[in-house]
Amino acid sequence: MPSSSRGSSPAAAEAAGERGLVDRIRRRVPPAPASLIVGIGDDAAVVSPDRGTLQILTTDALVEGVHYDRRFSSPVEIGHKALAVNISDVASMGGAARFALLSLMLPDRTSTDEIDGILDGLLTLAADARIHLAGGNITRSPGPLVLDVTLIGSVRPRKILTRAGGRPGDALYVTGQIGAAAAGLAWLREHPSAAPISGLRGNRPDDPELSECVERYCRPVPRARVGALLGRNRAASACMDLSDGLADAVTQVATSSGTGARIDASSLPLNRGASNWLASRGEDPVIASVAGGDDYELLFAVPRRTASRLSGVAREARGVPLTRIGELTADPAITLARNGRLEPLPAGFVHF
Amino acid sequence: MPSSSRGSSPAAAEAAGERGLVDRIRRRVPPAPASLIVGIGDDAAVVSPDRGTLQILTTDALVEGVHYDRRFSSPVEIGHKALAVNISDVASMGGAARFALLSLMLPDRTSTDEIDGILDGLLTLAADARIHLAGGNITRSPGPLVLDVTLIGSVRPRKILTRAGGRPGDALYVTGQIGAAAAGLAWLREHPSAAPISGLRGNRPDDPELSECVERYCRPVPRARVGALLGRNRAASACMDLSDGLADAVTQVATSSGTGARIDASSLPLNRGASNWLASRGEDPVIASVAGGDDYELLFAVPRRTASRLSGVAREARGVPLTRIGELTADPAITLARNGRLEPLPAGFVHF
Repeated sequence: MPSSSRGSSPAAAEAAGERGLVDRIRRRVPPAPASLIVGIGDDAAVVSPDRGTLQILTTDALVEGVHYDRRFSSPVEIGHKALAVNISDVASMGGAARFALLSLMLPDRTSTDEIDGILDGLLTLAADARIHLAGGNITRSPGPLVLDVTLIGSVRPRKILTRAGGRPGDALYVTGQIGAAAAGLAWLREHPSAAPISGLRGNRPDDPELSECVERYCRPVPRARVGALLGRNRAASACMDLSDGLADAVTQVATSSGTGARIDASSLPLNRGASNWLASRGEDPVIASVAGGDDYELLFAVPRRTASRLSGVAREARGVPLTRIGELTADPAITLARNGRLEPLPAGFVHF
Repeated sequence: MPSSSRGSSPAAAEAAGERGLVDRIRRRVPPAPASLIVGIGDDAAVVSPDRGTLQILTTDALVEGVHYDRRFSSPVEIGHKALAVNISDVASMGGAARFALLSLMLPDRTSTDEIDGILDGLLTLAADARIHLAGGNITRSPGPLVLDVTLIGSVRPRKILTRAGGRPGDALYVTGQIGAAAAGLAWLREHPSAAPISGLRGNRPDDPELSECVERYCRPVPRARVGALLGRNRAASACMDLSDGLADAVTQVATSSGTGARIDASSLPLNRGASNWLASRGEDPVIASVAGGDDYELLFAVPRRTASRLSGVAREARGVPLTRIGELTADPAITLARNGRLEPLPAGFVHF
C-alpha cells in the first residue's frame, strides 16, 4: 500500500485501497468517549445510549453536481457541510447529536489530499459539536463523489420538536438571517474557479458583505445550540430547519400542523449584503430570500403560553438573533403580507 | 404532482417530486412499533431503545456499476440486497437490527416502477427480519443509482462479537456454503440481460444447481438468526461476515485478533453447483470459492471452553450448516492446508 501521509503529493484513492483509506480516517479521529463501545473498523459500530433518553436518527447525502460543485467549494468546505446539514436536522428536532457514520463514495480520480481535506472539514466541525465519528463505509463511485452522513443523537422524552406540533395563533420565529446562502450561490455560479478547488477555499467577492454570503453558502453554521435549548425548555411547539428555504419550511410546518401561516415581509431578517446585491441585479430581495435554499437557520413556532420561556433561549443563544416573522393561522392559506396586501408565499427550493 | 400509483406506466422519479417519493415510501411502510416515536417525514427519526442494551450502527451502500448491474439484477433484488448486506453486518456483531434509514440517490431516468420494485424488495425483507424503516433521505444523482442503508440494532452488553476477540487455538467455523455467489456472478457476466431488468428477476441458467448460485448472488440471505444466537449464548469469540469473501474474512479476524490462521481446504463447505461449473471452465474451485465475494455467510471463532454451547446454536439454526474449517494460530501466517502442503490463503475480493 502506498504512503498516504498528509502533505504528500496527491495520490489516487484507488491506490490507497479500502483498508488504507479506513486507516487514514481512523488515525484522524480523536479518542473515543466511554459510550462508544466498538468504533471504526469492525462490521458495525456499537454505542451505549444514555438511560431515559430517546435516539434521534438522521441521514443526509451531499452529492457532487447536485449539492455542491468542486469549482465553488473546497474539500474542507464539503466535509464541513456534509456534517453541518445533518447537525441542523438533529437541532431542528430539539436534540443533540452524539455519533456520526460516514458513507463515502469516491470516484477513482479522487486524491488522498482531497480525502484529507474532506475529513479535516468534517472532523473539525465534529469536535466543535462534540460528535464522535463511530464508523461508516467506503466504496468506489463510477459517478459523482458522495458523502452520506448518518447522525445518531439523543433527546429527552417529551422534549422532541417535530414539524407537526404547531397550533393556530402560535408565533413563528426564525434564527439568524435569511437570503445569504442564496446570494452566495448565485455569485459563485457567475464566478466559478477555473479548476476544482484544492486549497482551503475558493473564489470570494471583494465586497466583505457579499463575501460573507458566499461563506454562509460554503460553510453553513448549524443552529445546534438554539435547537437543543428550544427542546430543553419546551418553548417551541414545532421546529424545522431552512435547508430548502424559509418558504418551504413554513409550508411544511403549517401543513404538518394542520394550519395555515401568514408571514410579514417587513419583519423578515434579510441579510443586508444579500439584499443589496440581489436588488442591484433587478431581483426582488424578499422573494429571492424566502425561496432560496441552503440557509441552515431554524424556523420554530411558539405558543402564547410558552412565550416567556423564549427569553431564556434568547439569553443563552450566544448572540444568534431570534426574529418573530409571522404566525400560524386557522385559515389554511400560506401567505406573505407585504405593503398591506396578502400574496401566496412563493414555492421553496426543490431538488427534483 | 402527477399520479404515482402502482401499476401505472413508468413515470420518471423527477416528475414525482421529492415529496411525492417520500409519500410513496410512507404508504408502503407497515404500521410502526411503539418504540418508533417519530418516523418518516420529519427532519429526523426518533426511536426509544431498550433499557440495558447497546446500539449497533452500520451503514453500507449499493452503488450501480460497482455493487450491482441492472442487466444482472431486478429492482426487487437490488432493494433486497441493499438491506441484506446491512443485516449481515449487524448479525456478525451478535445483534439484531431494529430500525433502518434509507438514503436513495436517483438518476433522473429512474421510473416510479423501478422505485416501487426497490421498495418491495427492501420492505419484504425488512418485514421478515422485523426491521422498521424509520426515515432516510432522497436526492437526485447525476451518476449511478445508489441505495445507502443505515441500520440501528441492539445487543446486550458483554454479548458483542467483534473481529478482534479470537485467540490462538480457537476453531474457525463458517455458516452455509461458499462459492455460490462468485459462480453466480461469473455466469451473469457471461449472460447479461439485453436491457435493464424490469420484472421480478433476470436471466437464470437451465441447470438448477447453477441457477441457485445466481439466486444466491442476486438475493443473498443474511444469517441474522445465527448471528443473534452466537451473540446471545456467547459461543463465539469473534465473528465477521463474508461480504468480501472467506479469505478476506479469515485475514481480517486473524489480523484484528493478533493471530494467524490455518484453513483446511478439504473441510470447506463448497457449493457443489458452483464447484462443478467452475471446474468445467478450468478454474480451481477452492481458490475461486475462498477468494470470491458476496457470500453473506458468517465466519466465527469458537474457543475450546465454549465449544459445547455451539451445539445449542446448531440446534436452533433451522438447518443452516455450521462447518469447522480450521483454526486461529499463534503463528502469524495465514495459510491454506491442501493436499498435505501449506500455501498462502489467496487475497479476498477488493472494491478498490
